[in-house]
Parts: sequence; C-alpha cells; structure tokens
Amino acid sequence: MPVFSHAAMLHGADYNPDQWLDYPDVLEADLELMEKAGVNCVSLGIFAWARLEPREGQYDFAWMREIVDKLRGRGVYTILATPTAAKPNWMSEKYEEVRRVDKNGRRDMSGGRHNHCYTSPVYREKTAKINAALAGEFGSHPGVILWHISNEYGGECYCPLCAEAFRAWLREKYGTLERLNHEWWSHFWSHTFTEWEHIHPPMPHGEMCINGHCLDWKRFVTRQTADFMKAEVAALREGGSALPVTANLMGFYNGLDYFKFAPLLDIVSWDNYPTWHDENPDELAVPAFTALTHDLMRGVGDGKPFLLMESTPSMTNWKPTSRPKRPGMHMLSSMQALAHGSDSVQYFQWRKSRGSCEKFHGAVVDHCGRSDHRVFTDVARLGARLQGLSAVTGSRVPARVALVYDWENRWALEGAQGPRNMGIHYLETLAEHHRPFWEMGINTDVRDMSGDISGYDLVIAPMLYMYRAGFARKLAAFTRGGGTLVGTYWSGVVNENDLCYLGPRPGEGMAEVFGVRAEEIDSLYDSQRNSFTYEGESYRLSELCELVATEGAEPLAVYGQDFYAGRPALTRCGHGKGTAYYIAAKPEARFLKAFYARLADTLNLRPPIVPAVPCGVELTRRKAEGGREYWFFQNFTREGISVELRFPLYNAETGEEASRAELKPYESGVYTDTAP
Amino acid sequence: MPVFSHAAMLHGADYNPDQWLDYPDVLEADLELMEKAGVNCVSLGIFAWARLEPREGQYDFAWMREIVDKLRGRGVYTILATPTAAKPNWMSEKYEEVRRVDKNGRRDMSGGRHNHCYTSPVYREKTAKINAALAGEFGSHPGVILWHISNEYGGECYCPLCAEAFRAWLREKYGTLERLNHEWWSHFWSHTFTEWEHIHPPMPHGEMCINGHCLDWKRFVTRQTADFMKAEVAALREGGSALPVTANLMGFYNGLDYFKFAPLLDIVSWDNYPTWHDENPDELAVPAFTALTHDLMRGVGDGKPFLLMESTPSMTNWKPTSRPKRPGMHMLSSMQALAHGSDSVQYFQWRKSRGSCEKFHGAVVDHCGRSDHRVFTDVARLGARLQGLSAVTGSRVPARVALVYDWENRWALEGAQGPRNMGIHYLETLAEHHRPFWEMGINTDVRDMSGDISGYDLVIAPMLYMYRAGFARKLAAFTRGGGTLVGTYWSGVVNENDLCYLGPRPGEGMAEVFGVRAEEIDSLYDSQRNSFTYEGESYRLSELCELVATEGAEPLAVYGQDFYAGRPALTRCGHGKGTAYYIAAKPEARFLKAFYARLADTLNLRPPIVPAVPCGVELTRRKAEGGREYWFFQNFTREGISVELRFPLYNAETGEEASRAELKPYESGVYTDTAP
Amino acid sequence: MPVFSHAAMLHGADYNPDQWLDYPDVLEADLELMEKAGVNCVSLGIFAWARLEPREGQYDFAWMREIVDKLRGRGVYTILATPTAAKPNWMSEKYEEVRRVDKNGRRDMSGGRHNHCYTSPVYREKTAKINAALAGEFGSHPGVILWHISNEYGGECYCPLCAEAFRAWLREKYGTLERLNHEWWSHFWSHTFTEWEHIHPPMPHGEMCINGHCLDWKRFVTRQTADFMKAEVAALREGGSALPVTANLMGFYNGLDYFKFAPLLDIVSWDNYPTWHDENPDELAVPAFTALTHDLMRGVGDGKPFLLMESTPSMTNWKPTSRPKRPGMHMLSSMQALAHGSDSVQYFQWRKSRGSCEKFHGAVVDHCGRSDHRVFTDVARLGARLQGLSAVTGSRVPARVALVYDWENRWALEGAQGPRNMGIHYLETLAEHHRPFWEMGINTDVRDMSGDISGYDLVIAPMLYMYRAGFARKLAAFTRGGGTLVGTYWSGVVNENDLCYLGPRPGEGMAEVFGVRAEEIDSLYDSQRNSFTYEGESYRLSELCELVATEGAEPLAVYGQDFYAGRPALTRCGHGKGTAYYIAAKPEARFLKAFYARLADTLNLRPPIVPAVPCGVELTRRKAEGGREYWFFQNFTREGISVELRFPLYNAETGEEASRAELKPYESGVYTDTAP
Repeated sequence: MPVFSHAAMLHGADYNPDQWLDYPDVLEADLELMEKAGVNCVSLGIFAWARLEPREGQYDFAWMREIVDKLRGRGVYTILATPTAAKPNWMSEKYEEVRRVDKNGRRDMSGGRHNHCYTSPVYREKTAKINAALAGEFGSHPGVILWHISNEYGGECYCPLCAEAFRAWLREKYGTLERLNHEWWSHFWSHTFTEWEHIHPPMPHGEMCINGHCLDWKRFVTRQTADFMKAEVAALREGGSALPVTANLMGFYNGLDYFKFAPLLDIVSWDNYPTWHDENPDELAVPAFTALTHDLMRGVGDGKPFLLMESTPSMTNWKPTSRPKRPGMHMLSSMQALAHGSDSVQYFQWRKSRGSCEKFHGAVVDHCGRSDHRVFTDVARLGARLQGLSAVTGSRVPARVALVYDWENRWALEGAQGPRNMGIHYLETLAEHHRPFWEMGINTDVRDMSGDISGYDLVIAPMLYMYRAGFARKLAAFTRGGGTLVGTYWSGVVNENDLCYLGPRPGEGMAEVFGVRAEEIDSLYDSQRNSFTYEGESYRLSELCELVATEGAEPLAVYGQDFYAGRPALTRCGHGKGTAYYIAAKPEARFLKAFYARLADTLNLRPPIVPAVPCGVELTRRKAEGGREYWFFQNFTREGISVELRFPLYNAETGEEASRAELKPYESGVYTDTAP
Repeated sequence: MPVFSHAAMLHGADYNPDQWLDYPDVLEADLELMEKAGVNCVSLGIFAWARLEPREGQYDFAWMREIVDKLRGRGVYTILATPTAAKPNWMSEKYEEVRRVDKNGRRDMSGGRHNHCYTSPVYREKTAKINAALAGEFGSHPGVILWHISNEYGGECYCPLCAEAFRAWLREKYGTLERLNHEWWSHFWSHTFTEWEHIHPPMPHGEMCINGHCLDWKRFVTRQTADFMKAEVAALREGGSALPVTANLMGFYNGLDYFKFAPLLDIVSWDNYPTWHDENPDELAVPAFTALTHDLMRGVGDGKPFLLMESTPSMTNWKPTSRPKRPGMHMLSSMQALAHGSDSVQYFQWRKSRGSCEKFHGAVVDHCGRSDHRVFTDVARLGARLQGLSAVTGSRVPARVALVYDWENRWALEGAQGPRNMGIHYLETLAEHHRPFWEMGINTDVRDMSGDISGYDLVIAPMLYMYRAGFARKLAAFTRGGGTLVGTYWSGVVNENDLCYLGPRPGEGMAEVFGVRAEEIDSLYDSQRNSFTYEGESYRLSELCELVATEGAEPLAVYGQDFYAGRPALTRCGHGKGTAYYIAAKPEARFLKAFYARLADTLNLRPPIVPAVPCGVELTRRKAEGGREYWFFQNFTREGISVELRFPLYNAETGEEASRAELKPYESGVYTDTAP
Repeated sequence: MPVFSHAAMLHGADYNPDQWLDYPDVLEADLELMEKAGVNCVSLGIFAWARLEPREGQYDFAWMREIVDKLRGRGVYTILATPTAAKPNWMSEKYEEVRRVDKNGRRDMSGGRHNHCYTSPVYREKTAKINAALAGEFGSHPGVILWHISNEYGGECYCPLCAEAFRAWLREKYGTLERLNHEWWSHFWSHTFTEWEHIHPPMPHGEMCINGHCLDWKRFVTRQTADFMKAEVAALREGGSALPVTANLMGFYNGLDYFKFAPLLDIVSWDNYPTWHDENPDELAVPAFTALTHDLMRGVGDGKPFLLMESTPSMTNWKPTSRPKRPGMHMLSSMQALAHGSDSVQYFQWRKSRGSCEKFHGAVVDHCGRSDHRVFTDVARLGARLQGLSAVTGSRVPARVALVYDWENRWALEGAQGPRNMGIHYLETLAEHHRPFWEMGINTDVRDMSGDISGYDLVIAPMLYMYRAGFARKLAAFTRGGGTLVGTYWSGVVNENDLCYLGPRPGEGMAEVFGVRAEEIDSLYDSQRNSFTYEGESYRLSELCELVATEGAEPLAVYGQDFYAGRPALTRCGHGKGTAYYIAAKPEARFLKAFYARLADTLNLRPPIVPAVPCGVELTRRKAEGGREYWFFQNFTREGISVELRFPLYNAETGEEASRAELKPYESGVYTDTAP
C-alpha cells in the first residue's frame, strides 16, 4: 500500500472547471488567481462524470488533461476524484437499479447526488470502468498526487439487491437462524425467523422493533459502503495507478463507522464546517467541539496526520443561517486544523458556481471574480503563511489521554427505547468530557472499542452502554496495570449484539473494576434536577441519575435530593495498580472541569511549558519525526492575551526567541523547542 | 355466558417464558421468585404464536402445558391469551392480506405487532384454528381461569377487503344512496355518490371532507374490530372452553368505542400507565386523571368490578422520559385501582426481556434476577397486603353522579372544522369537571349516551356537541323528573350523523330544557381571556365563549369583557322537578371547584364519614354484596395527613377501630363500617 | 373582449342551493332573506357539477334555471360559475387521469376539491362540454351578469401528462438541450441532460437541486393553469355567451403568478379573509396588510376596479382559531375593500351548510335561519349603505408610488439556498415598506417587473434578488428620467434564469445606478442585531446586513457594530435627473416610517386634504371618470377620532359639508370634493 506524504502544507480547493468549460476566460483567470492565493493543490473532477463520459462508454478526458497540465505548469498539484458521487442522467434513466430505494421503499428518481445504490452490479461495473480509465490516463501524471475516492460517502439503500446482500451478510455472521433468533431476541413478539428470505432491512412500515436487527443493518451499511469503496480502489489499481487514496469523511456523521472505514485509506481527510459566530453565548463551544472532531478524525486514522479536505473560506449556504467569518477567523480556524494534525487547508470551493443550489456557498473566488475581495485576501494571507510552516508537515499529535467514542455504542445507545427517549445526549456528553482537557492544553486522542488503549495514562469512557466483545477485558487490564479509568452511568448494559447482561451491571466483570453495581436509573424531565457536593462545591445533576450499590468502591459524592439522597453518585475504586472512577449521574460541565483538573494534577498531565492556559486559548502540541516539538497557541477570544512561558521557545515562523506567547484577538502562534 | 368471579385479589404479571425456553434456569428461578412476590396469577402466551405454531399448521403446546402445570403446582393461576396480537413471520410472508394497509394506502411489511387486518379471511381462519386448539388443550385446565383475548386491540386497516366490508356496512345502515347522500350532506362540493363502489375509506389523498363519512368510518372500525373479537371468542367456544373472557383496554384510547366493545366481554380489564413524578407542578393532576380513567373503565363494564391487567412495577420505556416510582408510589397507585373497582393488580411484565425494544420496560424481575432489588421488594410487599384484602373482591363502587363521555361525540367534535381547530380540549374539559368530585371524595360514574342515566342525582354533560338519537329525550326526562343537569357551550349542535340542527341550539328541545338559545361562539386565541363573577368571586374564561340568549333561564353570571360584556355566561333553569345549568364559556378550574361544591351541598352528595376531605387525599367507597362498605383513603402528597372521621370505622386490614385515618406520605388505608 | 361594468355596488354571496334541493322551504326563505339583507347579486353553482350533470353526459339545468329566474324576479343578479373546481365522483372514478398526482408521485383518490389535472384531455373535454352547455342555457339570461370561472385556481399536478407538457414547454422555451443545460447550470453535479425525456418535474425523491428547473416548473404551473382557464373561457364563447369573465384570486397566494393570470380576465375578483381580532398586540397590522393585498389585487388587474368576491360575514372555520367580527368590523372591513378599488362586497357564503366540512364557516344566514341574528343584521346594514354609494362604482384609485412585488422574484429568492434559510421574509419586508404609506394616507400601487413604472414619482423595489429581462433597464431609465428609486440588500443577484451576474452586484448596470457594489452579506441569527443612526436617531438592524462599497453613492448611515462598523448601510446616489437610495440591511419598521416620511415630504406625496393622518386611520382616494374624488376615512381603532380637514368636503352619503371627519370606533366615512 502506498502511503501519502508530502513535503509542504497543501493549500487549495475543490475545483470544478467542468461547470465552466464554456467560459475559457474564467479558466484562464483561475490560474492567475490561484497563484495570487498561494494555492498549491486542487481537488478535481468530483462531480464531473457527465463531462468525463458524456454518453455511455464514450470517455472524454481531454479537457481534464489540459487542466491538470496547466495546473502542473503553475505548480499546482491535483488530487483527482473518482466521479461516483453523482450519477449522470443517462445512466440513472437507463438503469433503474443504480438509483437508491429509501426506507419507505420508494425508489429515487434521477437527480440529487450521493444517492447511488452501492450494491448495484451495474453501478459497480460503470464505476470500475471509469475509475480504471482515469487511472490509466492520470494515474502516473506527475501533477497528480492523490486519489479522492467519490465524495462524502453516506446514506442508505433499501433496494432488493441491498436486502439480498444484507441477508447474505447475516447468514455469514450467524450461520443458523437459531443463532440469529437468539442474538436478535426475536422470539419476542413472535418475530422468530424461520426462513432467511423473511428478513428485510428495518423499515418504518415493517420491522423496527428488534434492536439487534437495526444494529446489524447499520453495521451492514458501513460494510457495504466500504465494500463499494474497496471496489473503487481496486479499479484504480487495475487501471495501473499506485497513487495513495483518501476519502473525505464528515466528523461525527452517524451513518458510517469511520473506525472501520478509515483503515482502507492511505490518509484520512475530512470536511469541517463549524458554525462560527452563532448565537451561543459561550463563544468557545464551537472551537472546543471542532477540536474534538479534529481529534476524532485523527483517531480514525490511527493518529497519523490527516488532511483538511473541505472548509469554507467564508460562509456555507446550507445551514439555517450562515455568517461570514470575521477578520482573523479564517486564519485561526485553519491553523486549528494544523494544530490537531492536519497537513492541509483545502476549501470547498475554488469559485462560486453560477447557478444551481450551491451557488451561494462560500468560495475563494466570488461571482465578481475580484482578487481584492476580503475573502480572497484572507485566503491569500493564509497561503503565504502555510509556506512558512512546511516543517510541521508529517509531525504527530502525541497524547496521554484517550476518550472512548464508538459508533456501534452510539447506534445501540440511541436506538434503545428507554430510559430517556427525549434525549440521551451521547455526543454532548462526550464533548463535556473532552472540553476540560481542551481548556487545560492537554492533547487528547479519541479511540473506539477496537483500539489499543494500553499506552495511555487516562482513559475516559462515558455512557459505554454496549461493551463490544473483548473491550471490557481491555479496560480491566488497563486499570489493573496502573491506568486511570473514568466511566459513567448507563455503561455495560448490553453486549455486542444488544442483549442485556443478566448478572451485575456494568457487565463482563466491570462492576468489580468500578466497585459498584448499578440497580436503577432515574430519568429526569428537563426541568428536574438533583445535585451532589464534591470537594466542598455543590454541582447540579440532570437527565440521568443512576442508583448504584458500592461493592468495593469509595463514595466521593452522594446525591443531595429525592428518595435516593445519600446514595453514592461518584465513586473511586482501586483495581490492581490502577484506579477506576464511576460518575453515576450527568453532572453540569463545571464539575467535570474541577474533577479533571484534579486528575490532571494527580497524573501530571498538564503541558509543562506554561504555568496555566488562559481561558479561550487552545494549546496543542505536534511532534516531528526527529523529536522536535511544535506548540500551537490559539486565541479564540476577541481580546488580546499574553501567555507566560515557563521556559523560552522559538517562534517557528520568525525564529525569534520568546518568553511569552503574545496573541492578538483571534491570533495564533506556533512555537518550537529548538532554534530553527 | 360465564361470568368471571374470583375469591381473592389477583396479583401477578404478563409472563413470557416463550422468550426464555433456552434458559431453563431462568424458568426455574421464576417459580421461586413468584412465590416470594406473592404472585397468584399470570397472563401467559400473549405474543407466543410463533412458539405455539412454529410452522403453518404444526402446533406445539407442550412447553406451555408444562409451564401452566408448574404454575398451578405453585398456586399460580393462568390467564391464557389468544396469540393474535402478533403474527408469525411465516404467516405474514406467505399471506399478504393479513398485513394491514395504512391510511396512505401502503401495505405493511412483516414486523411490529397489533397490525393484522381484522377483515382478512385468512387471518380469521388461522385465528379460529389456533384459538380452538388452545381451547381444546387448556380450556378446562384447572389452572386456567380466564381468556385474555388478543392484546390491546386497536388501529385501522384500509385494505381493499376492509373497504369492501365498510361499503357493505354502509349499505346495511343507509339502504339507499339517496339516504346516504343526504345524511352525509355529500351534495356539498359535488361529492354525491351514484355508485356504492365509489365509496372508499377516508384517506388523506382521497376524501376527508365529509364529516359523516369520517364518523361512519370510525364507527365501522369499532364494529369490525369487535366482529373480529367475537370470532375469536366463538372459536374458543367451538374449541370447547366455557371460561370467561376479557380483553385489555386502554382507557381513553380514541380508536375504539369501548362502550360498544366492553359488553362483549365477561369482565373488563385495562392497562394503566400514568406518568408519575412528571414535571407538572400540580402533583395531583396525574392521580386525578388516573381516577377518572378508572371510573371510565368501570363505566364501560357497566359498573362491575374490573381487572387492572397491566401496570408497571416501576417505569415504562416508551414515554419521552420515564421515572422509577418513588418509595410508596407502587403501593399507592396499585391501591388506587382497587379503590375504583379493580379486583386485581397485574403488571407488564414479570421479567425484563433480554433483547428487543421492550427490554428496558419495568418488570418485577430485573435483568440481574435479584429478589432484594427495590422494585421486587415493593411488589412483594403489595402481594402480601393484597392477601389481606380478599373480602373486597367483587364489591361495587356506587355513585350518584354521572359524567357523560361519549366516543362518538368526541370523534364528531374533534373531527369538525371550527370553531377552534388549534385545540378544543374535550378530554381536558372532562377532567376539569371530574376533578372537583375527586377532591370532595364523591364517587363518580362515567356514562356514554347509550347508558341509563335515570338513577343519578346529578348528570354532567360537557361539550355534548352531538346528540345521539334519543339522548336528548333522556336528558329532558331526567331533568323533568327531578334530576340536576349541567351542560356547557357547544352542545346540541349536530345530530347523530353530524348534521346541524336547523332550529334553536342546543337542538332537539334542549334549548328549552336549559332555557337558553346559543347564537354565536367566540373562539379565543391562547393569550386572550374573558371573565365572569360568581358568588362574589371573579373567574377567568378562555378558549370558547358562547353568546346565548336566555329564554326562561336565570343568569347566574355574565361576561365581564368584550362586546358581549353583560350577556349571560352561566345560567340556571328549572325544568319540571329538576334544574338545568348551562355554562356558556370555558372557565378556569377554580370556578368548577366552587360551583360543584355548592351543588354537592345542595344535593347532599358529600361522603358522610368525614367533615372534609383534605387536599391531596382521595376518598372512594366500595360496597360489597351484603352491604358492607369499604372506604379507601389515599394520600397522594409527600406529607403525612390525618383525616378526622365523623364516626369510628374499622381498619379493614388490622381490624382496629379508628377515629382518624392516619396517612403517611403516599400511604393508603382501607376502612370498613362493621367490625371484621 | 367584453368589459364588465355595473351601475351599483354588488352585494351578495356564494349561493349553494344545490345542497338544499330537498328543502323547498329553505329555498323560499332564502329569497325573503336576501331582500332583507339588501342582496343584489349571488355567485351560483360553484360546486354544482354533480347536480348539473348527475350522470355522464346527462345535464339537468332545470333547477338552476328556476333559481336564476326567481332571483331575477327579486332583483338579484347572478354571477354564474363554471363547476370545474370539484369533480363529480362518477368522473374521477371512471377516468383516473382527471385526478391529480402529488409531488411524491401519488395519484389522488376521489374526493376533495381543487384537485383536477389541468392537462388531462378528458377533464378538458368534460369541462368544454358542460361550459358550452351552461353558456347555451344561461349565457344570455338577463339575470346573469358575469362568469365565475372555476374557483380559486391553484395547486400542482405531477402526472405523466403534465410532465410531458412541461417538457414540450421547455423545448419551446430553450430550443436545444445545450441552451437548457447552460441556463439551468446543470453541468453542476453532472446533471447534464442529454435527452428531453430525462427531464421530470422537480419532486422530493428526484431532482430538487437545479434552481432554474424549479423556477421553470413554477412558471409552467402558472402557464398550464392559465391555459386551462383559457380553454374554459373559450368553451363559454363557443357556447354562445359573450358575458364578461372573472376568476376569484387569493391575494399573495404563492402558487400562481397572478400578473400573468389576471390579464385573461375581464375583471379581477378576490377572496379576502384577514384574521381580525387576533393576538398580535399591534392591532393595525391586519388592516395594513389587508390594504396591501387589496393594492396587489388591484395591481394585477392593471389598476382597474375589482370585485371582492368572497369574505366572511363573521368568522371562518379553517384557521387555527377564528373569532366573530366585533360590532362595526363587518362594516369597516367591507368599506376597506371599496376604499381600495372594489366595486362589490360578496361573501362566502349565503347560508351555512348543514353538514360536511364547511358547515361552521360564517354565512349570512346561520343554521337557525333567523333574520334577527347579529350577523344577519350587520350584513343588512351594510347592504343598505352600499345602495347609497353607487356613484363610487367604477372609479379608480390613482397612485404616485409603486411598490415592486414579483412572483418570479419571490420564487427565485425563496427557492435559493443561502444566505438565510431560516427565513428571508420577503412578504414581511414588502409589508414593512408599504405600511408607512398606508399610515400617511398615500395611495400605493403594486407592480411586478413586467409592469410600466414610468409614470410614478417613487418606485420601491425591496429584495429584488432577480432582475427579469429588461427590468433593470426600466429602473435605470426611470431614475435617469427624474424618478426616485429605493432598493435594498440582496438585489440584482441573478438574472431571469437564476444565474448569478458575474460582474458587480446589483447586476445589469444597477450597481452604477445605486452607486454601490455589494461585496458580502452577513446573515444574522434571530437574536443578533446591528444598528445605524439616521438623522440623529438610532435604529436596529437584523437578519441581513450587506457589505457594500460605495462607488458614487453618498452614505447616509453606517453600521454601528461588528467588524463592518463604519461601512455604509444606507446610501443615496444621483442618477440623471433622479435619485437612487440603497438600504443595505434590514431595518426595524420605525426607520422606514422616518425614511419614507422624509421622502414623502421631499416628493410632496402626502394627501392635501388633511394636515396629518392620525394613527389608526386609513385614508385612501378614489377618482371617478369625470374627475370627482372620493376620500375614504377609516378608523381601525377602538377609540373615536376626529380628523381635521384642510378644506371642507362633502359627506358622500349624507351630502353634508364637513370640516372634520368624525369617526367613531371602527367607523368609516366617505367624503367627496364637490357637492353631490
């Protein structure tokens, strides 16, 4: 497998000249403007199938070759897309099967995008042919550096072909219907299956009551989408290209388990669209959640650097409302990507299209085509800066803390009926556990249950409702070996197939590790509260309050209200050389800040270079192959901030030695430990 | 017809061993645990069709017989279900017609429950066969005491078979299309029917504008569901069983007219799931509404004792959120059922299922299987108490007040367009008229328009928009004969087929009885108010304010605002020996409390045993065959309350004489008039 | 083309005797009651197809002739409807194609109304036959004065016949697919069309992403509906009737471009249902918006008098809630129609139907049939008054101010994704620009982009996102010639086919006219604000704040907040002899009041007869053929108001000279400039 690496930070955009072939002046202007903007890389051909194969079997690659050549001539590399994210009309009209069927059983008409059937033999054949042809044409072109496989894979197809593939996958997984009926607990409501053919995808007017069935369907969707992607890549290889491949992911998108998906790629890339300047009075919520998402995307790529494949130079056009980035925010938000491990800043899109539904999405070049436009100059300023940060390329983001996030757990947790159907807030809870570390300047990895957690000092696993096979053993071993584990209410309830543990909860021996046994769970209405006191401070509890019996654990805090007042709400238990904390209820964020500050001190996790990280400053660390460290300071406030350094660092861009990091509003600085 | 009666309070749960046949240890443990919990009755086989008939025509009853025998050996009776509430997959896959068609014309796929076509000849045949076979096998078993017909009948089918049956029923009802066109007023918008075949069920993409058509469809759904149930019972009789039958109803469920349904049963049973501990600051709203629902369920069974067939020992899993019952609430809410005429406390469910969508619904036995679990011990405590209350079994709940609630009226009222489509609040209004009696400790019956009202002292008929044939005559006779009648705005508007009366309103002579003629109705927005003053106190009016002219009535209060200020808003009119009150607008609840307190004094309705019922205490009375009376005192507050008795009673459980009912928080006491 | 004119104000209602043919007494009573109510005109037969053609091809017009004759005998004219708004069941059951297909591809079942396929050859044939037959029977009847074509045309059909007609229309419009692909920008996402047959209507499960496609579909719906109406009229003409035609429109209804529709009619009529007495604390919002809608309806009829075809004598039954009109409001709201150019006051409906879904819609005659009912007497009072206002009939409503409202602009603007999908509020903005003139007593015309604007002094064109071909030239010429133009943010963004202008914005040279170039647009969340100061007063800005560069314009106000503080938010630019104002952000209504007050003074637009128009008084002017002027004063407040007159006028009803207009609460007065 080829591995992607590059000597400089990539900077560029999705480029859609296929919309502008009738406008040669525009195409010429693009080349000039790219140079002005400091662009060294574009993603090309993402929705160009109808231009590349205007009639079935008739390829026209000449226009694209001309563009790739011209770009190359200007020093602009091409990330070349396979065009499969949108089907040409001639294909969807001729071959019904390439169009998706929705969960209501209705087949799409032609139109839209991201809506092909990933099982369809016809679509796979058409894909294989054009991918191979593109690989033959461009797979060794010196201007092409990476394949961009399709676009933002997602969605589900419920057509008969997919249903059949689902059954085949189930048959392989379970072997017999007896086993399936047990694991799905389908004797419930007489849903016992006596023929494989009686199994359908979960659909609203059909079977939606078997949790294991719904869960397996989601697993199958990931499997089948990955299988389609594998076929795409195989066709490129057959076409003769050995170039590395990426696919642009979408952060916490719920439809695909990226931890299974990303290993098929040479490098992970993703599309990042935070809602900067929204009406949340907490202005740090957006950068904190964006940081978490970067950490996730780095995590699905096993910690390697990733690419920021899409971001907007200014505004989106698909949100309820969408504000332009204030001065400084484009630079700052782009630098945040680097700070978390990105080796690129790419945009959707280079130039605003003239018509159709994305014509008002932000772009480097606006309809007016001017290079003195505020958005363009912001981009150009960043382009120049990135050239000075080439040395950062390829460096890692080392972390001693892991946060466990798992798509299968999310599906099972959110798919269950009870205890709180009005909102169980898994992602919000994850974000609340991540934020104290973001505020303290402590790098954090995100791992799923298939990951290796043995090397961390601290593992945080909130709401781990489902224990996938083997993970409880890993957690126990981690703790026994000296690790610190934090778990919460509503953990260890079901096994990998969503069957409840019949013994103590958390199951699989974890009740012993935590020293607690969960007995009941109270599910509060939105206006209801409980509380506990921790280290002299009282904290609100809401939503879920679990009633646990301690069996070995020491209570650190107890409930303050209701009939379970006085029962443990926060516990600590020694296990082997390590320690396991159990947070039995959902606390306000303020508690997690205090709790993790204490843990950070105990475990000595704080960054050594500063006495403290001021509020609103994000501090992360990248580490290059040779050991050199880069400290990224980012000021997400509208005030200037001066951060004291414990020992002098060097500004990685200017080379100057510094005893303080001086940050203007929205400013970021990169510092390194050795003189450049 | 056999009539159900039993010498002791039933206590037990839905029992689903069909989910656990692979877990013999669990089944053994169940028997031990039932004994500990004081269980003497289970409902068995409710969703067991796939286990009872694993392949078409191949019955397997052995496992069930073994369980019934074992239960019998432990003194546990069985209520045996017909399994028709869920179809096995083999059946729904082979016979399309057994699957429902929804109102959008889409046929269900396999899956779910409560979704068979009640017209389908195939489903009726399969049902008849298995019911007869079950009757043959278990119909004389000494451990079986009652048939549980299907489960929670409900829903609608719009398939061609049902449409055809609907037409046949209409043809029988109306005879000619001329008559139908008149009664449906279908010359409106040229909807005149010229062929019977042109009539379809009301469907959103079809005809939804003819009120009479929509109303007849709802009547037909009740008729056809009842017809299906009759066929179920007939098959049991043909199979040789003479055991009584019940079906578990669902309170105010809007899809079926239980007053037509219940007479087909030997005993009514129902499933009760109040939202205890919700966020309504009025903590008494839930017990008051639950009391009303018990009264309704007793009413559909013509006042006879009923069974509480389902309730949760702790929490549900299908509401927006669901809280465990606080200590004491399980006992209290179960006793409330007895207080209103129940001869049982049964649960859904005995043991939490291990998988699928009900695995987190409360149960006597949790996944951990422990008998020291709080929920289990609460259940066991109640089990023990019920044994001491055997003497109450079979006693009646006598009432002198009747509240008129009628499903056909509800359908017509809520189905009309205008005067207040944003919410006309029929059920809320009923509850507001019921609550003063609940607070005063006055037993109340609920009757529909087919019922006999002649024996009551007071009849309350709020929002009786539709007068079913003959009911106005009953009301007039009741009043003329000395009864007190209370009616409200928006009454007597249409006749049984939803045609407006062309003369004075309320129609059919009731304008004369009330001494008022309704002229207009003002329909306020939510933020708008009017008011009136009654006995020196001012009360808010909202939502609907009718403008009436008095023609014989005496105004007791007049509107305070708007252009109709000074016009009558509350009137009284003598009619024969009786009196009719007309409340022309929707008053705040506080007014109804004052108004009915006055009436209760006038009619001497208050319970003689107490000087007053404290706020939060529910007081009801049951009366046994021999005349013995049981007074149920229930404290729904979180404070202790001591209720003074006018004359000494005997505690029905301890036998001690008492001059006060001492009630701890959430405590209930049963007192009787003669020493035990 | 015959032109409708009449010597007296029409007064009457939709009359549906077809519902009452079995009730001869009712029909007799109707004639008496009409006389009492001062009714001189009814609309007949609107939904009577099933009565007129009870079996296919068998017409029965006798009952209708009898009624028309009897009405004529009482001095009541008939507006005769073609019955096509509702299909008889015999037709929709026999001919599937007459039933519409919805956007989800589902064909309607029989039922409802306003749901025929306007393309269906069968429906067109049946329509042509009955229309011709009606024309033959009644087209020269002396009692019949006008044809009422169908009823409230609207809705869309997506059936294969319509899809085919859509393609034919596109082929005619674009000629080649190359042209279509460019204008639709359909190379975007590979949506390139290579066959005409691949084009479908925009449907949610198909293509919804091509703005030009969606826009053309809406244009086609207007075209096809108009085509159907033309065929209706042609059949009347073929049947021998030369009577004028109208169709009842629905104000700002979004489904049809009435500016294209109305020219096919001899006189515009419309149905007006304001929500009088709602909970908006600003009680003048409803009359102000109603005034705007009257102005629009007059505008689509090119300024000629129109007919108020439907209004309710009291309440509706189809709104969330619906209040009866307070005393005086019926008179006032009816006079408001006259004040804006109506030559009639007609109601839906004469008599409340007895059954079906409109039985509670307000009517002149209630179910009780009494003529002493408040609603009836209110109607009768108006009937008497209208007889005294015959001289007003036919007079015009002259205006010097035009507000540009354009359905195609609305479709394009609201159909775009971005910049503010949560609400861009075109209609609300129009209303805000109209209201200051309503408050100042200045007549205002509403024009679309096809209209002639050359004669006005002031043209206001808010949010003119799209410039239809040629309109920018008209605007520039208007300004150059001395006119005053007011434009706003988000104008001149796209051309007629929704393609963005690639040069400066507003496009087509309008940037030069305004002297500004729009660069970015900020789209605020609901809670966010900016501000500017104008003539010493500070005003809030919200929702949209455009960032413009001045190139010739003079800034009159600048932004007060955010990173664009200090940049121009309101500008003025001389152009030729005229002036162009550009309002770059959405201001609060208070600003528009101040701004337009200033302009009104500058341009001398205020009505000369009063020193000032008091708050809550509407003042409009009609001008008769001979030059006589009628000033309508209307008091929409609940207080009496006395308006000083600058010079004496004559009360047009009493003939008395007056130096003040004395208006009781809700009272209206008509004054004229010469003694009667």
